Amino acid sequence: MRILGLDPGLRHTGWGVVDCQSGRLRFVACGAVHPPADVEMAARLKALHDGIAEVIREWKPDEAAVEETFLNKNPGTTLKLGHARGVVLLVPALFDLPVAEYSAKSVKQAVVGTGGASKDQIEIMVRTLLPGSNPQTADASDALAVAICHGHRADTDRRWAAGTRQ
Amino acid sequence: MRILGLDPGLRHTGWGVVDCQSGRLRFVACGAVHPPADVEMAARLKALHDGIAEVIREWKPDEAAVEETFLNKNPGTTLKLGHARGVVLLVPALFDLPVAEYSAKSVKQAVVGTGGASKDQIEIMVRTLLPGSNPQTADASDALAVAICHGHRADTDRRWAAGTRQ
Repeated sequence: MRILGLDPGLRHTGWGVVDCQSGRLRFVACGAVHPPADVEMAARLKALHDGIAEVIREWKPDEAAVEETFLNKNPGTTLKLGHARGVVLLVPALFDLPVAEYSAKSVKQAVVGTGGASKDQIEIMVRTLLPGSNPQTADASDALAVAICHGHRADTDRRWAAGTRQ
Repeated sequence: MRILGLDPGLRHTGWGVVDCQSGRLRFVACGAVHPPADVEMAARLKALHDGIAEVIREWKPDEAAVEETFLNKNPGTTLKLGHARGVVLLVPALFDLPVAEYSAKSVKQAVVGTGGASKDQIEIMVRTLLPGSNPQTADASDALAVAICHGHRADTDRRWAAGTRQ
């Protein structure tokens, strides 16, 4: 199973692709989409859509996993984050991929083992769990962490299903 | 010029199509998209995308106008509204339509003449300004109001441009 992890943001949306086979994870690719900031909102969202669609067409994931967005105290900022996250959830669905959502805490627990892990800790664990990966930005690193989280969940589900068949 | 007005919401997104020629407005069609509430967020957003895309394919508008979303006190609710509004802004952009945004106050001022108009007042004025229109829901009525607002703005811009050419 090939997983696309996505860390949504209007300025930077990180993406990371990971293969997951029998609980083993393998790094495939990662990067970030950077919509232009100096155009109207609809054009920014179209750039975000086009960037994610290009990643899906190139890497052909089977499933997607999206991190929950941090709620800003400023409602206007939260609304803008919502715009970006709506598009990030939509695009994989337009390609008929199942789309899972994970809280930042779940992602940190899956990758580092504690829900209060720092950005640096996440990056170190991502590089350790995915040899060969070299995320250039925190967005790409976070996206790989979401993919790892989904891979663990999928493997746990598989083992449970196998257990109940015995 | 044919205008598509949109009033975004995750449960109900109103749409209204209006033709605008030399400042005269003519009702074309209106309705609402109702994404299912009992499925995952990505599936709800896909249903919203598909509904708006269908309206654009059927009525072939030249421009779109979207109402600004009311900011809820609950940040989680604002984020969900943001998801819906992100998709509502995105879809016309995917069809290469220019997408304008108007505050609720601007829409009320354009349609009723005061920024503090009630829903009922808007509906009455929409029916008066667009003979033949019979919006079945407040969402459809609000969407037509956004289209009227954009039509007025476009006409004002045209007159200004004509004035500067003299």
